[in-house]
Amino acid sequence: MIDVPGTALVDHHCHGIVPGVLDRARFESLLSEGGAPPPGTSNFDTPAGLAVRRHCAPLLDLDPHAAPDEYLERRAALGDGAVSRLLGAAGIGRHLVDTGFRGDELTTPDELAAYTGAGHREIVRLEAVAEALAAEGVEPDAFAPTFARRLEEVVREGGAAGLKSVAAYRVGFDFDPSPPSSAEVTGAAANWLHGLGEEPPRLADPTLTRLLLWTAVETGLPIQFHVGLGDSDIRLHRTDPALLTDFVLAAPRTPVMLLHCYPFHRNAGYLAAVHPTVHLDLGLTLTFVGPARAGQVLAEALELAPFGKVLFSSDAFGLAEFYHLGAYAFRRALGDVTDERVRSGEWAAADAERIVTMIAAGNAERVYGL
Amino acid sequence: MIDVPGTALVDHHCHGIVPGVLDRARFESLLSEGGAPPPGTSNFDTPAGLAVRRHCAPLLDLDPHAAPDEYLERRAALGDGAVSRLLGAAGIGRHLVDTGFRGDELTTPDELAAYTGAGHREIVRLEAVAEALAAEGVEPDAFAPTFARRLEEVVREGGAAGLKSVAAYRVGFDFDPSPPSSAEVTGAAANWLHGLGEEPPRLADPTLTRLLLWTAVETGLPIQFHVGLGDSDIRLHRTDPALLTDFVLAAPRTPVMLLHCYPFHRNAGYLAAVHPTVHLDLGLTLTFVGPARAGQVLAEALELAPFGKVLFSSDAFGLAEFYHLGAYAFRRALGDVTDERVRSGEWAAADAERIVTMIAAGNAERVYGL
Amino acid sequence: MIDVPGTALVDHHCHGIVPGVLDRARFESLLSEGGAPPPGTSNFDTPAGLAVRRHCAPLLDLDPHAAPDEYLERRAALGDGAVSRLLGAAGIGRHLVDTGFRGDELTTPDELAAYTGAGHREIVRLEAVAEALAAEGVEPDAFAPTFARRLEEVVREGGAAGLKSVAAYRVGFDFDPSPPSSAEVTGAAANWLHGLGEEPPRLADPTLTRLLLWTAVETGLPIQFHVGLGDSDIRLHRTDPALLTDFVLAAPRTPVMLLHCYPFHRNAGYLAAVHPTVHLDLGLTLTFVGPARAGQVLAEALELAPFGKVLFSSDAFGLAEFYHLGAYAFRRALGDVTDERVRSGEWAAADAERIVTMIAAGNAERVYGL
Repeated sequence: MIDVPGTALVDHHCHGIVPGVLDRARFESLLSEGGAPPPGTSNFDTPAGLAVRRHCAPLLDLDPHAAPDEYLERRAALGDGAVSRLLGAAGIGRHLVDTGFRGDELTTPDELAAYTGAGHREIVRLEAVAEALAAEGVEPDAFAPTFARRLEEVVREGGAAGLKSVAAYRVGFDFDPSPPSSAEVTGAAANWLHGLGEEPPRLADPTLTRLLLWTAVETGLPIQFHVGLGDSDIRLHRTDPALLTDFVLAAPRTPVMLLHCYPFHRNAGYLAAVHPTVHLDLGLTLTFVGPARAGQVLAEALELAPFGKVLFSSDAFGLAEFYHLGAYAFRRALGDVTDERVRSGEWAAADAERIVTMIAAGNAERVYGL
Repeated sequence: MIDVPGTALVDHHCHGIVPGVLDRARFESLLSEGGAPPPGTSNFDTPAGLAVRRHCAPLLDLDPHAAPDEYLERRAALGDGAVSRLLGAAGIGRHLVDTGFRGDELTTPDELAAYTGAGHREIVRLEAVAEALAAEGVEPDAFAPTFARRLEEVVREGGAAGLKSVAAYRVGFDFDPSPPSSAEVTGAAANWLHGLGEEPPRLADPTLTRLLLWTAVETGLPIQFHVGLGDSDIRLHRTDPALLTDFVLAAPRTPVMLLHCYPFHRNAGYLAAVHPTVHLDLGLTLTFVGPARAGQVLAEALELAPFGKVLFSSDAFGLAEFYHLGAYAFRRALGDVTDERVRSGEWAAADAERIVTMIAAGNAERVYGL
Repeated sequence: MIDVPGTALVDHHCHGIVPGVLDRARFESLLSEGGAPPPGTSNFDTPAGLAVRRHCAPLLDLDPHAAPDEYLERRAALGDGAVSRLLGAAGIGRHLVDTGFRGDELTTPDELAAYTGAGHREIVRLEAVAEALAAEGVEPDAFAPTFARRLEEVVREGGAAGLKSVAAYRVGFDFDPSPPSSAEVTGAAANWLHGLGEEPPRLADPTLTRLLLWTAVETGLPIQFHVGLGDSDIRLHRTDPALLTDFVLAAPRTPVMLLHCYPFHRNAGYLAAVHPTVHLDLGLTLTFVGPARAGQVLAEALELAPFGKVLFSSDAFGLAEFYHLGAYAFRRALGDVTDERVRSGEWAAADAERIVTMIAAGNAERVYGL
């Protein structure tokens, strides 16, 4: 048995959690990317919901498969103690935290790390930086240089390990892969900035997306891309990572980190096999499909992906449960896949141990220079 | 062992069968969505063909794996008795029958149900209603209101439980998701109606497809969509259900029932997870891949889909064998998936039983108001 | 146990190997479609790399899992003997060799066959014929008839068994499926021929691609299409074989052979099920995913594909190891899939043996008239 459980994980993409007591409606809403359950159904009747009852309940001193209300009652009674137990069980040694989404509802990276004493670094979300700039006010023709300066400052001040793009949500991956001209950027910025109303700004313009990405390339940092499954904003067919091929080829020194990837994880594995800069993880995929299917999905991702290009992330957001479930599903999936190969004689045990360490931590340390 | 076999299924999408004796050419032609086998091959050399010999032969008192000609000879000798045995073995308590395709060759819903005493309701195919209207003659500027009236009548008179769209076959899912204007409809109707020749009318116009769908939305009934695998008319890449995302968002009170879904069943599961109105089944997929693979395909569909959003259908068409095979593959697949989870400790037995009942019947009863 | 090991395979798509001693850099570069490994990684840390150490090392008298340098040292010491052992172990009775890619680096079909005494026939790559013509010089308005004549000559003189298209690499499959007009061809040929510089000509024009394909149709020979995974030139999303549907329908007497197909192998299986002329193999897919996953991937391809439409190929290129690994992964995968079905009672043993023979050799013999 490969000792995946004993390995401290580097979680190269995650978020803060919502602190405090969560009632059933709030908990169910955080339990699904679809939000509140449709009438007549419960979000506990999902693979992730059943996994909470099976794998988190015992950490809170309940029997496996405890009923949802019993679970939430106990969770409330334990307060921060529940969070500490769930995060502690995850066994993550270092968090790279994306702070750019609904940050005001979530714990900060410091608060998150304080639960377990794990190390942490920040991942800067490109769209959040640009949207903050827009909210402050900036002239269209100053947008490009101001964004570049701001991004550089944010990265430097926070000691960020990498950048993140949600182009998948905003424009899809079928954008023009070349850098936009100054005139194009000024025009697009004018349209965007002049159209802003009361709502917080939301950047969903393809030209500005290209500007963000090419400014990101200049930093030399790895760029994480949300890929595939997400919430109801996603147009799934526009998030096939194969659509990023021309951008990958155009930025040959930029590490590209494909996150989650389902149901395109085989495509992601292929891209990692043929493009030196492409890496992938399964992120929230393993949490959502649950331990019963995580092994099969991971095995598919590993059909082509070089073992030096695959990373772990939990992509946990909101619920501390997702840290435990993400780490648990990952460890068990990787353990099952590698054990089976050693048992059948396909791999030597020493190779399996080496590969497990690479995927659990080493690849992230190398790519992010941790 | 979860008692899937004992549960009476609601088959929320199926068709009539071709009555009477079928010779080998006719049987082989109905056995594949590709029609007659290419020279040098037999449609019995497919997963479904081998499953007929394995799982239907014993119902006709033959040994498993009986030769094709032996099977067809015995089937002919038993006549309607063969049909009764095959339909009876399926254990379906209620049929929702799509009557809009090659209805003159097939048994009516009453005739179908009479074999087993099952209940039945009708599913109205939108294109069939529109094409009947065109065949009768209608002025282009009257097309929209006349179609709406006719659809309402057909639904009311037949007590239909839902509607069905074959947009996948006719235009693909990359249509403009918004309702068409009156002028657009009149123009498109004029083109279509004036172009009709001797052939029965075939509606394959994107504007009229949008009209049909938005008229369907007005009824408040669930709309079934053919998705993915079908016959040689399909352009598979245009039937990815993710392409329906904007329509789903634009019609937020319309239950959307994705049928068959292969090879997009993971995409369908994702859509069901994030859009409250989206449901799915695997329909003819399980029949065609056969019992040897049905468990794996179902497990993939269940990776993300909430258990309250998955339904059973046989999508049987033409051959009574497809009722038995569809129900058998479904029961065994669902039994295998749930048993494995109970056995490994992932699910409590009570949850597994509850989920099986939901998928086998309860979800259909809730969504269609049966 | 079905005796897949004992069956002499027809390898209906393969290439020559690079003769002589290969140092580690050259070997690693041939071991991956991505070429040289990225810094900090080794191409031995891939499924195929581990499979070389596991399954090829013993053929060279080394222990399974021998270290890469040890393996390469022994390989160099054995010289041509290593190649003979690896090719001999593959047990291939007949090669159909694509001679159109980097032919000057590789053994000829005669040289390849001489290692084992296998039979061989040639597969003519359409683009290579056209590019040779361009290099020789041809007037734009003579391009179409000259290409047709040349193709006919090359086929006749070489006794070619089939043709091959790399449209997937050059233009993707979303091309206009109809034959181009003479004027279109002359215009496109003028653009291409006049734009040629010092580099060897590379045909990547959609109009000329259509000309090549429609000229190929006229020969009556099967046309092989590269589909899916390849090297970093591929835009994966443009190689979904479903995009070929209209071409398939427009050329109803042309056998279409879909090669490799991953990750679109289910789509390919579907197309084979509904279009009489469509066939498929998994080619280099099984080599690259390795024996640990070959069974699962093959099982997916066989979910819908009629068993008379599936073929074997190694698609070996450059490394003799790929012949052994491709054949080994295929035999084991097919053996596992069929054994499991016999064991579970789904298939009769006689059917399994018949199906194995069809896929291993019989289908290729029928389609290519060998």
